[in-house]
Amino acid sequence: MKSYLSKMGQRTAEPPISWLMHAALSHPRLISLAAGFTDNTSLPVAETRAALARVLRSTRTGQPALQYGSTTGEPALRQLTAAHLQKLDFKAVVSSSSNVLEQKSRTSLRADAPARQARAKDDDRKNYPSERLLITSGSQQLLYLTTEALCDEGDIVLVEDPTYFVYLSILQSRGLHARGIRLERDGLDLARLEKVLASLKRSGELRRVKMLYLVSYFQNPTGVTTSFEKKRGVLRLLKQFERAAGHPIYLLEDAAYRELRFTGRDMPSALAVPGAADRVIYTGTFSKPFATGARVGYGILPEPVFSTVKHIKGNHDFGTANLLQHLFIQVLASGSYRKHVARLQKRYSHKARVMKQAIEKYFPADVEWWEPEGGLYFWARLPRHIPAGVKSKVFQTALKNDVLYVPGELCYAEDPTRRKPDQELRISFGSAREADIREGIKRLGTVLRKLL
Amino acid sequence: MKSYLSKMGQRTAEPPISWLMHAALSHPRLISLAAGFTDNTSLPVAETRAALARVLRSTRTGQPALQYGSTTGEPALRQLTAAHLQKLDFKAVVSSSSNVLEQKSRTSLRADAPARQARAKDDDRKNYPSERLLITSGSQQLLYLTTEALCDEGDIVLVEDPTYFVYLSILQSRGLHARGIRLERDGLDLARLEKVLASLKRSGELRRVKMLYLVSYFQNPTGVTTSFEKKRGVLRLLKQFERAAGHPIYLLEDAAYRELRFTGRDMPSALAVPGAADRVIYTGTFSKPFATGARVGYGILPEPVFSTVKHIKGNHDFGTANLLQHLFIQVLASGSYRKHVARLQKRYSHKARVMKQAIEKYFPADVEWWEPEGGLYFWARLPRHIPAGVKSKVFQTALKNDVLYVPGELCYAEDPTRRKPDQELRISFGSAREADIREGIKRLGTVLRKLL
Repeated sequence: MKSYLSKMGQRTAEPPISWLMHAALSHPRLISLAAGFTDNTSLPVAETRAALARVLRSTRTGQPALQYGSTTGEPALRQLTAAHLQKLDFKAVVSSSSNVLEQKSRTSLRADAPARQARAKDDDRKNYPSERLLITSGSQQLLYLTTEALCDEGDIVLVEDPTYFVYLSILQSRGLHARGIRLERDGLDLARLEKVLASLKRSGELRRVKMLYLVSYFQNPTGVTTSFEKKRGVLRLLKQFERAAGHPIYLLEDAAYRELRFTGRDMPSALAVPGAADRVIYTGTFSKPFATGARVGYGILPEPVFSTVKHIKGNHDFGTANLLQHLFIQVLASGSYRKHVARLQKRYSHKARVMKQAIEKYFPADVEWWEPEGGLYFWARLPRHIPAGVKSKVFQTALKNDVLYVPGELCYAEDPTRRKPDQELRISFGSAREADIREGIKRLGTVLRKLL
Repeated sequence: MKSYLSKMGQRTAEPPISWLMHAALSHPRLISLAAGFTDNTSLPVAETRAALARVLRSTRTGQPALQYGSTTGEPALRQLTAAHLQKLDFKAVVSSSSNVLEQKSRTSLRADAPARQARAKDDDRKNYPSERLLITSGSQQLLYLTTEALCDEGDIVLVEDPTYFVYLSILQSRGLHARGIRLERDGLDLARLEKVLASLKRSGELRRVKMLYLVSYFQNPTGVTTSFEKKRGVLRLLKQFERAAGHPIYLLEDAAYRELRFTGRDMPSALAVPGAADRVIYTGTFSKPFATGARVGYGILPEPVFSTVKHIKGNHDFGTANLLQHLFIQVLASGSYRKHVARLQKRYSHKARVMKQAIEKYFPADVEWWEPEGGLYFWARLPRHIPAGVKSKVFQTALKNDVLYVPGELCYAEDPTRRKPDQELRISFGSAREADIREGIKRLGTVLRKLL
């Protein structure tokens, strides 16, 4: 790499996933269970056409959509988004039948007396302030901006092990270190998190820890959803180590897949953890649940991170395209967004069931696999001695048999404290057609049966 | 500022222009000649509605617009953009009646013999390759990405003195140093550029110089257009000092306002300078000439900068919203873009004339002012002893009289080698209505007459 590029420029590599895309292009008959794209046939063409026709129906309504806006975003969208989020969390809390919430919190949120309820709503609203809500170009941009605002070269970000590989690219590119925290079926292994924090404290590295990055719903790549109890546990642990760190340690909650739940009950976000709002950076998106070609995401951030991120965004692009923001104002306000999400959930529910049945039918019994409650991904683990990485016999044979998956190894941080696992597969039912899901899993199963 | 923010986070300040916007809000009867917004009534509401209806007319055409695309952008838009740019430059070259082009270059481009013409076209195309063209969220994002790819903290970027203030914010935020090069009516003072380069060579700082940032058409803030001869001169000088620098020194040409020309002939871009394509990073935008609410810009970059910037963009947002890209594919291919730009040029031409007449009528004779051939800005300079900065009597009295301008001082880099000029004003005719332009200039003129 040319030494006159910036250090960051020199570090920034082609993302590993590009290689997979090239592989896909050179195998025209390939069935890709790798792509994280959304279902093409589900895309709301008619709804978007109607919404945009409404936005652009007159110069009065159309001009604001075609003019510059502010860096933070359109006030109407920020308010709708804050309300949307508050509603998601409120529903999640009241519908929660498990014991994950403190009695106190449940009482305040389910209070019968109107006065109590009003107060609870006030408390609640504080955690979903439109004033600290920033509209971004997808939630991806919020991840980038937040990392810029908080982390210097050499700093450490705690991540799930495995985690979203594009976030790992951000860390790598910016010269940041990741420390992976083992993942269980209901989220981070808290005992492991405590051990890692304690060890960083002992080594004097805790002051370099700025945040923990958590993909909390139907995680990419494992499909795991973090329980509310674990979110509370994470925040408690981070707080506990703040004194030794000498500064706040933030929880960056990435809820990109949240609205793609098709079974079970929604989990409240970390914003709903009492007293935690000043340590939670929450990011979500309207793109994935509606149209990935209309990239509008958002974040709620505590001060001073909010203002800092806002100013940095000013330098990036001084605001996300107003036309897309007006599209979402329209679909949110008209109910067309809600209706589409319900349809999408049904569709993915069906496709996930198809994949599950195929896996049950075609995969060898000793392959462990996790079924998600939403999102786009199944996660499979081969018996310990069989690698599934890019160079493995499994991957190469699968490719020869025209089926592609994302090797799990690509989703693990470079963490010198552990060997990188390589016997896992991310298998997506997002973009493939139903028949291709069946056929793809069949091909993959045949490969696995042969090699296991 | 909190010390747990990144160094960049700590450095990133509220942009100076925010203060002006707050001032505007607190003066409801204010006439703003400060905003760089485009004319609200000019925004192509019907054209955009028609184009989007066409993009979204069926699932076949609509789905690709609502799906993720690639990081580099839609192939069709990249091709249309490269062809668009090539056409702009080709027209500019052949229509150029001045002596700015080398005979050789003119011959090759105006060649009569078909063979020669074909060869020239081939040469030409090489400088406008869609393969090295990146679609971005406005040209602003390209400025940010390029600076990330090339510059480390402490590096130096040469800029016009004065220059686009948001670019100065990027430099300040990223810990970069700016060195201002004096501006003449036809662009950079080349003698001054040579002196600065020589002095940086002597001081051993030349290796920190990564690029020169040039707003080449109807510059923000001065309205100055850089002549083609000067572009060639700049590239020659940069090349000359490369050996001492030990690496390439790029010319980052920001042509955001290029298509807003309303008089005179288009100037070829630096891409048209023979043999210079490997040192020119050219960025333009479709937002300003069409709709600022649909933010789509682009850049042509030489390798290895192109790949590096592309990978960094992957981390930012993995690609600009496809829906907006399809909108521009539609308006470019249908000719609706071209028609709108012609209308816009007429409109701004008229507004500029209104402003000019008002300035002639109301400004004191000893105020020097520059009339632009396009873009959105007039530039005025008060007689030497009168300051016009934010804290000056002129600015404060103007504000009291409900008229706002951008103090020129905000557009000068922090450059320790010279005193920052503060007697200038950027006056925009972009967003204000005709009557307000007249009234605003009248108020400003009254203030100036009183204080001069």
